[in-house]
Amino acid sequence: MAVVVSLEEKRKGRPSGLDALLQLCGGDLERVNHAIVERMHSPVELIPQLAGHLVEAGGKRLRPLLTLAAARLCSYRGDKHILLSACVEFIHTATLLHDDVVDGSDLRRGKPSANAVWGNKAPVLVGDFMFTRAFELMVEVGSLDVLRILSQASSVIAEGEVLQLQTANNMATSESAYLQVITAKTAKLFAAACQIGAVIAERPSAECEALESYGTNIGIAFQLVDDVLDYTARQATLGKAVGDDFREGKITLPVILAFRRGDEEEREFWRRTMERLEQQDGDLERALELMQKHKALADTLDRAQHYGKMARDALALFPDSAVQRAFLDVVDFSIERAF
Amino acid sequence: MAVVVSLEEKRKGRPSGLDALLQLCGGDLERVNHAIVERMHSPVELIPQLAGHLVEAGGKRLRPLLTLAAARLCSYRGDKHILLSACVEFIHTATLLHDDVVDGSDLRRGKPSANAVWGNKAPVLVGDFMFTRAFELMVEVGSLDVLRILSQASSVIAEGEVLQLQTANNMATSESAYLQVITAKTAKLFAAACQIGAVIAERPSAECEALESYGTNIGIAFQLVDDVLDYTARQATLGKAVGDDFREGKITLPVILAFRRGDEEEREFWRRTMERLEQQDGDLERALELMQKHKALADTLDRAQHYGKMARDALALFPDSAVQRAFLDVVDFSIERAF
Repeated sequence: MAVVVSLEEKRKGRPSGLDALLQLCGGDLERVNHAIVERMHSPVELIPQLAGHLVEAGGKRLRPLLTLAAARLCSYRGDKHILLSACVEFIHTATLLHDDVVDGSDLRRGKPSANAVWGNKAPVLVGDFMFTRAFELMVEVGSLDVLRILSQASSVIAEGEVLQLQTANNMATSESAYLQVITAKTAKLFAAACQIGAVIAERPSAECEALESYGTNIGIAFQLVDDVLDYTARQATLGKAVGDDFREGKITLPVILAFRRGDEEEREFWRRTMERLEQQDGDLERALELMQKHKALADTLDRAQHYGKMARDALALFPDSAVQRAFLDVVDFSIERAF
Repeated sequence: MAVVVSLEEKRKGRPSGLDALLQLCGGDLERVNHAIVERMHSPVELIPQLAGHLVEAGGKRLRPLLTLAAARLCSYRGDKHILLSACVEFIHTATLLHDDVVDGSDLRRGKPSANAVWGNKAPVLVGDFMFTRAFELMVEVGSLDVLRILSQASSVIAEGEVLQLQTANNMATSESAYLQVITAKTAKLFAAACQIGAVIAERPSAECEALESYGTNIGIAFQLVDDVLDYTARQATLGKAVGDDFREGKITLPVILAFRRGDEEEREFWRRTMERLEQQDGDLERALELMQKHKALADTLDRAQHYGKMARDALALFPDSAVQRAFLDVVDFSIERAF
């Protein structure tokens, strides 16, 4: 893949993706982590057990970090960003719990998924609890503008999840239908996480929109890279099983591109494996070969870079500063994970 | 059951339970039904399909009716009660969708449950959508006090569902632990539905609390009667399969009373059937015999009447009026369903 080389060169001598962001917002993130642990407490033991299993497994906390950084970029003075960051992570956690049930995933962040440990019932209900707790947190913060953004985002995310279910195992899914799914289910929360930082700082709408646009584009890039990683990463890096998407017949962009660019025999391979889920030994390897042949993975990354560029341009509205540069690093981070 | 006779006598010549309420709030309920259909719309077809399957199957709309009636009792002038009623029904619908997945129920309101028709994935995700849409509606109404009540109620409901899961198949569950579960998972939404009617009317806190207390108590009574009906109703009346709770090993008050009042051989029967779920032909009949022998069903209804009385007394704060009398009818309705 040609892109690898150029990115490798660009990366030389620069600190890795999230370092600057973590350095700038590390103190705030400590407070967010504290709030997360405190607010997922419940006398009903299964709740902190399940939530803790996932939350403490320590994702990157990328979404809450974006809220903290956006607040800082907008010179926000106050405390609302702490609870709202926790709230964003709770919404994310709730969707992960339900996603893993719906997908029947066994691994999440390198550990057995909640449904693998507790079965499906508890993750459904604890996911609901995390969702409602998120709403309690945002009500506590008390900004109707923020409530509007986050409730609408949650609704769009849920709608996107249903849309994804509806398009599952359907090789007729177009690139634009796929983009619609990931914009809703992934990018919307990135967008909201960024936007609310500007909203609580009461910045002009142009800045709120710039951060929303940054979030949307970085979210799309992030998901595109995730979909590539599902085919290329080593399990240790990925924290879940390689080829999960393939085994579930999940239609992601690498599959869409390989299918559209393939001949009739190849398309029949995709229909058999992804639509009818009639899979046998060697099918994943064959899928990878076809993706290489048609540059499906490289071009998916190329698309990711396109959205990365839009994210960068959205941020150009803000003057150069350490936090603005940290935001730009996140763009690189989101894409370079793939290499 | 002695109670049957006295209630039968009391009921003579009176209109049935919800008639007065429906007559007083029928116009508003039309508007709520309209809002429900409108707001569950989505371009993602599965959403209106699933939501419609349940919503249009037409439950009694008891919870939204309580919000409408409470607003009327408090002489509310405005439109907020319409969207908030729809919101209450959406929260209820979301919990039903997830409940049926968790319980593996095949029937709901006399029709195949959503999970029986679409499998488990869609109801989990559409349930999430209904939840988030409920929050959008309440944000649209824009009262932070109402948001506080409904977000906290949703969180308590979710917590109660997890608690129920945690106590499932455990014959050591005490009556008070059971009460804690149903207060959270059922009564809390009744309480919030009533309370918000007073809150939007900006009534003094004593009236808000009176309606909250009414809702809590009627909710507990309602659930106790539901738990009796699961053992005694004819399927056509119940809208779900008789004996579902038994087959799932769900620990409800009739079971708790029969177990506690039984001898060691009887207790072993309950442990085998409810804890180990080792059930065979004739077990449901045996369970019913034991419940009759120990007056477990009659005494559960007796408990329900106790909460019904508290609901009545809570309402005594309000002067006599048609809507106040309609509220009292709901108490009778909630309990007399059992007979």
